[in-house]
Amino acid sequence: MVSLRSLSIWFFFFVFLINPSISIRTSFIKLPTSDRSRYCDSWRLAAETNNAGTWDVIPSICVDFVAEYLNGDQFRSDYDVIADYALAFAKSVEIAGDGKDVWIFDIDETLLTNIDYYKAHGYGSEPYDDNSFSEWVVQGTAPAFDSSLRLYNALKKLGFTIILLTGRDEHQRSSTETNLRDAGYSGWERLLLRGPNDQGKSATKYKSEQRSKLIEEGFKIRGNSGDQWSDLLGFAVADRSFKVPNPMYYIP
Amino acid sequence: MVSLRSLSIWFFFFVFLINPSISIRTSFIKLPTSDRSRYCDSWRLAAETNNAGTWDVIPSICVDFVAEYLNGDQFRSDYDVIADYALAFAKSVEIAGDGKDVWIFDIDETLLTNIDYYKAHGYGSEPYDDNSFSEWVVQGTAPAFDSSLRLYNALKKLGFTIILLTGRDEHQRSSTETNLRDAGYSGWERLLLRGPNDQGKSATKYKSEQRSKLIEEGFKIRGNSGDQWSDLLGFAVADRSFKVPNPMYYIP
Repeated sequence: MVSLRSLSIWFFFFVFLINPSISIRTSFIKLPTSDRSRYCDSWRLAAETNNAGTWDVIPSICVDFVAEYLNGDQFRSDYDVIADYALAFAKSVEIAGDGKDVWIFDIDETLLTNIDYYKAHGYGSEPYDDNSFSEWVVQGTAPAFDSSLRLYNALKKLGFTIILLTGRDEHQRSSTETNLRDAGYSGWERLLLRGPNDQGKSATKYKSEQRSKLIEEGFKIRGNSGDQWSDLLGFAVADRSFKVPNPMYYIP
Repeated sequence: MVSLRSLSIWFFFFVFLINPSISIRTSFIKLPTSDRSRYCDSWRLAAETNNAGTWDVIPSICVDFVAEYLNGDQFRSDYDVIADYALAFAKSVEIAGDGKDVWIFDIDETLLTNIDYYKAHGYGSEPYDDNSFSEWVVQGTAPAFDSSLRLYNALKKLGFTIILLTGRDEHQRSSTETNLRDAGYSGWERLLLRGPNDQGKSATKYKSEQRSKLIEEGFKIRGNSGDQWSDLLGFAVADRSFKVPNPMYYIP
């Protein structure tokens, strides 16, 4: 009943899932391509649905799979369909016209794609490096996701107040603003970045606190778009949250 | 810049997503198979991540896609990987040994698979029919998901108290218990079904209320497994929730 193939999958599960913090080299595991692709697809679904919980780096056997997904048509289609659902919801919202109906956007991997950076860093298979990512941010050359720009502009036309809420630091404000404008974004009401008091906080806490302050100011948070569950969960959540795909990294 | 193919996709999005309540026949739309498969994969991701919000029936162009997915290896793999993540989390929980550490399971499409029923009803492309599904429940022949049974038994061994929380009605208790036992499940602490006071409540409200009562009784809800977001969200949520895939129907 137990084939060699299923045994190899079980071994794989044992090593990588029962204790996902183990980061040994996996190149010696010779899973058939179809099994590997199937596993990586399941892993991606588990990550996107937040079933995987906190994870450090993508499974090393899934690097090719993730690269192929990100550079292919499926990723773009996944983004597009979510943008369409977000827009359908947005159209159902009654806008009061007092500027208090808010849509929140995260920036990295939500409005802007850093795929050129991650391409040079193993598509999420290398641990996050703050220094090199900061250098990338200063360059300010990240392009927009087409479907995010489309959604962003449509929301503005519908009368939503756009607020950008990012884990980037206050000292990156200028290069972030320039990058956003160069990528085609304009007309946001606020750009909220991590200040000195936000250092060390989890993204979930920091972003929930920021949303809570907005609500105290009288804003109604109708929609929220982010590539991380920590953009969307916690407290003071939006009426509807939209999780765009990101199989490269997880921010708690 | 705009190809005929992308125009046809846009038309498709317009008709089905901007207003998903439109339920016209779609057989006249001749999307290339690869585009259809790509769209259906994106739709499935949107549904699994709760980005799609409330939906009635699966898009009619995705019936073959959903059937192929459910009957293929990917679905089983997706379930397995989530069971592994759930088990990895469960092993990290310190069990007090007082019987208060609880794992909640939903039943339909979580412990038991009704795929034989849905196979005869268009895999979720037909609207839900309470009468015919009730007849199916009385038969009591739904098999277990292998990975759910594996998880269930492993959790019992770890010392979790198992509580079953289902949207099925109190009058279906006996056939439900028999079906569960025949499928291999045993040793649950309670089987909670909808009573007279729960009629007409959304699943989210009903299940949240039930979880809340358990917490008032001193139970600590460590984990929760369900195929619907309404099994998992609301209030009195578990420490970790695990969403198993179900591309056939949505219960609010």
